[in-house]
Formats: sequence, structure tokens, C-alpha cells
Amino acid sequence: MKIEAKDIVDGIKAEVSAAVEAYKAGDVEPKIRVIVATDDAAVLSYVRSKVKQAGTLGIAMEVVEFGPERDQAAFEDLIRQSNADSAIHGVMIELPVRDGLDHDRVLSILDPKKDVDGLTTLNQGLIQQGREEEAICPATPQACIRLAETVGALVGERVAVVGRGPTVGRPLAAMLINRSATVTVAHSRTKDLAATIAPCRFVFAATGRPGLLNAENVSAGHVILDAGIAYEDDKLVGDFDAEAADAVAAYTPVPGGVGRVTSALIFANLLKCMTLQGHTR
Amino acid sequence: MKIEAKDIVDGIKAEVSAAVEAYKAGDVEPKIRVIVATDDAAVLSYVRSKVKQAGTLGIAMEVVEFGPERDQAAFEDLIRQSNADSAIHGVMIELPVRDGLDHDRVLSILDPKKDVDGLTTLNQGLIQQGREEEAICPATPQACIRLAETVGALVGERVAVVGRGPTVGRPLAAMLINRSATVTVAHSRTKDLAATIAPCRFVFAATGRPGLLNAENVSAGHVILDAGIAYEDDKLVGDFDAEAADAVAAYTPVPGGVGRVTSALIFANLLKCMTLQGHTR
Repeated sequence: MKIEAKDIVDGIKAEVSAAVEAYKAGDVEPKIRVIVATDDAAVLSYVRSKVKQAGTLGIAMEVVEFGPERDQAAFEDLIRQSNADSAIHGVMIELPVRDGLDHDRVLSILDPKKDVDGLTTLNQGLIQQGREEEAICPATPQACIRLAETVGALVGERVAVVGRGPTVGRPLAAMLINRSATVTVAHSRTKDLAATIAPCRFVFAATGRPGLLNAENVSAGHVILDAGIAYEDDKLVGDFDAEAADAVAAYTPVPGGVGRVTSALIFANLLKCMTLQGHTR
Repeated sequence: MKIEAKDIVDGIKAEVSAAVEAYKAGDVEPKIRVIVATDDAAVLSYVRSKVKQAGTLGIAMEVVEFGPERDQAAFEDLIRQSNADSAIHGVMIELPVRDGLDHDRVLSILDPKKDVDGLTTLNQGLIQQGREEEAICPATPQACIRLAETVGALVGERVAVVGRGPTVGRPLAAMLINRSATVTVAHSRTKDLAATIAPCRFVFAATGRPGLLNAENVSAGHVILDAGIAYEDDKLVGDFDAEAADAVAAYTPVPGGVGRVTSALIFANLLKCMTLQGHTR
């Protein structure tokens, strides 16, 4: 069974649109600043799609192209200025940044309450401490959980997170523990992936290795949440081999699954940022 | 087999003593401030033992008794003053604090570089992001890992963490993922503990529920690291039923195991704090 993203996405968009309208009625224009410090074509294309989606939701999105002539100090100044500017409610720093720029260092300056992507150390720490209500949680793990919950509750379930990256696997594992799942984290050093995921009902994959989950290691009881992103022959593919679709209970397609919900949740995160900043509508 | 703490403890103490001497030769006296905002007898006894141990290592330990006549604002002022005082290199806030005081709020003010116990959100976030070298890691998870590594390497091993508390289980799970173990986190909502821990070589327990691990759910291949703390008939006991000692490959005793290494590592953490503050010896 293919897990459908549409209803979730429609619900998020409706909520976001209503909130944006309410803010605008009070003369507050929700606004995100996106900082692009790369020439990577995939990143540039992703930014264009975000700008377009922001537009349909009534959200202003200002793209700052941070060219190679500007250095780390200028990068940090830009963040400080964004923190101080009360007309900017959220900041996204597109990854990866150009060589010579220190992303971690910049993130350590970013106001956690403007951290739409939920990647600052403070937000990650709040999630790890089970204090999600005070945190901005990264959109991709949120999307995985929303999709999983359409199939069943997570409390007490055995679940596996395959991948331990800072943007998906790590925060996702913490968020699943927060939801009282019994969580196993597997990764490149895991010796027997099939045996490791066998007792789990939900398997979340976020490695970017196409076909890592396939007919050899999944089984009929598995619900696969696929947050993997990779390109094969210019085609976007996930971690789960779609040819094994009939071998599992349910799965999210790539594209159209986790990524689609993630794209909508970014804007829900902006609204959470605004709430944490003290805005009311 | 009982896992011995003595060699590890002796090694840590020797390193700490040497570092303290080197600092004192440069006219810097390593100093911890302990804030006690409770009348709990067990806490007061624990503080006395820490003061004594600090003395044997040449470390100054100032105990501030924060009485019930002082309020949250005074508590926060005390932390700010401690942050600003360059003669204080580490701050410990004994838990639990008195009713009416907000521990989380105080921790959000504490300078992470003076956070000897590694409990601030920033330190927990750094650990979660795999940036332990920049973090102060809580001493108990460190102790568990040091003891486990006397038995064997953790890379690629199946390990279980039973318990998901903020001071041990959660940071320990993150630190084990950082060491490339395949980590399963179990807790009170886990349905079948025996089956969950069965494939794991190392089982770390930190629930404070005596006898949670026992002959019914452990097996011959298990290495048990017991960070549980509870009192039964005034006797300190861990999570592992010592009567099942012969049923496992190895285990840490309570008392004398994880707690003993933890007590020494607190002072190693003070030295790490000093390094992060820019002190050199």
C-alpha cells in the first residue's frame, strides 16, 4: 500500500494559509529569508520551488544570494542582522554552503527562534531533552512521523531509524523516543540490517543510498517511511527499492511522500517560529 | 564476571591530580560551586562525599546552600553571578531542587562551558549532533562507556539502553550512536524487554527500577552496565538483580561500578570546562 501524502499536505497548507491571513489582518507579514551560498543546481532548483510554494501560501520569501566574493565574517554579519530584523521571522541557510564557509559556526549564531529548519544546537538539544513544544523540529522527521501515524500509533511500537545524519536520522530517533516508540538506530556500521529491522513495524530510512531497503531485507509486516534523497539518471529516488513495494505492508513513495509533506511543514515551522518570537494572531 | 572500576578510577584520578597541580603551579585554582537547594538527605550525603573527593584531588569545592527563603529570581541571579566569576570554573546544581524553583529555567542560563554535569540544552544538543569534543558530556554515560570498553569495542555492536531519562539514558544513547554502535532504546512503554535486548551484546540500564534486569530477561552473552540507583532497605541497588550474576557474561556491580567511575569523571569534566573556557596549563 502506498501511503498518501495528499490529505496531510492539504491540511497543513490550509492551517498555514489561515494563520498567514490572520497575521496579515494584523499588519504582520510572515517572512522568511533564504540564504544561498552555493552554485549547486539542485539547491537552486529547490529554492525556486520553495519560493513558489511560499507565494501560494501568502508568505514572503526573500532570497539572499551570498556570492563567493563575500567571506565568513560577512556571512556571520548577515545572520546577526537577520536575527535583529524583526520583519524577518525565519532564516534558512541552504546546504551545502560553499567551501570556505563554516556552516556550524553560522548556525551557532542564528537565533534558535528563527531557525525554520530546526538545525541549531539548541533546537536539537530541546528535542533530545523531550521539550519539543519549545523547539523548532526539523521538517523531514516531522513529516516521517505524520505519515507513519496515518498507518498507526507509535507508542510502544518497535521502530527502526536507518541513518544517523544530523538533519533527519538523529532528530527523528529522538522524536520517536519522545513518542514512546522502542527505537533502534541503524547506520553504515550496522552489521546485519535485515536482522536489525526484522522485529520493527515501522522502518524510517534516511541514508540517501538508493535501494538500501529492498526485497532482501524487508518483510510483509513493514511500514516504510522513506526520507532518502538521491538522483539516479536524473531521477529522484529514495532508499527503498520501489520494486519491493508488494513485499511490505505500506510505504511512502519518492517523490511524493516524505518530501512533499516536508515542503509544507517548513511553512508550519515558520508559524511556530513566530509564536516562539511572541507574535500572536 | 564482575567488571572492575578500580583501574579506570585510578587512571582518571591520576590524570586529574596532575592537571590540577599544573594549574596550581600557574596560580589557577580549579574550583567548583555546588548549589544545594534541597533538604533531601541522600543529596546532602552525596554532596559531602563529592566535597571530600574534591579535596583529595586538590580541587576547591564551594557549597552554596540555597535556602527556602530565597526565590527563583535569586536562584537565577546566583547562576549569572557564577557565570561571570572567573574564579569559578564549574557549577553543579544538585537535583532535585526544591518545589517552586524551576531547574530547566536555571539551566538555560548556566554557561554551558561551566556545566560540569553536562545537562544544559546546548551540551545535550552538541552530543546529539556528534560534536562531543566541544561538549561537556554527563559523567554517568561517560562512565558506562568507559566500563563497557574494558570488555570490548562498541563499533558495530548491538547495544540496548534501557531508560530514557535526561541525565543518563538519552545522552548515553546519543553517545553510543556517536561510537557507531547499533543502538536500541527501551523504556517503560517497551512491550517485550527480553526480546528487545536479546540480540544485544551490551545492555545499559538506567531506570532506577531494582531488578528490572533479572534471570528472566538476560542471557549468557550479555554485558550489563548498570547505572540504576535506588534504595532498598537503606541499601543502594541497581537495575540488575545481582542474583543473576552467573547468567550473564559480565556486569558492573552497584555500588562500586558505574557510580564510582562517575564520581571521578565529574572532576575530569571540570578540567574539560576549564579547557573550553580557554585555560591552559
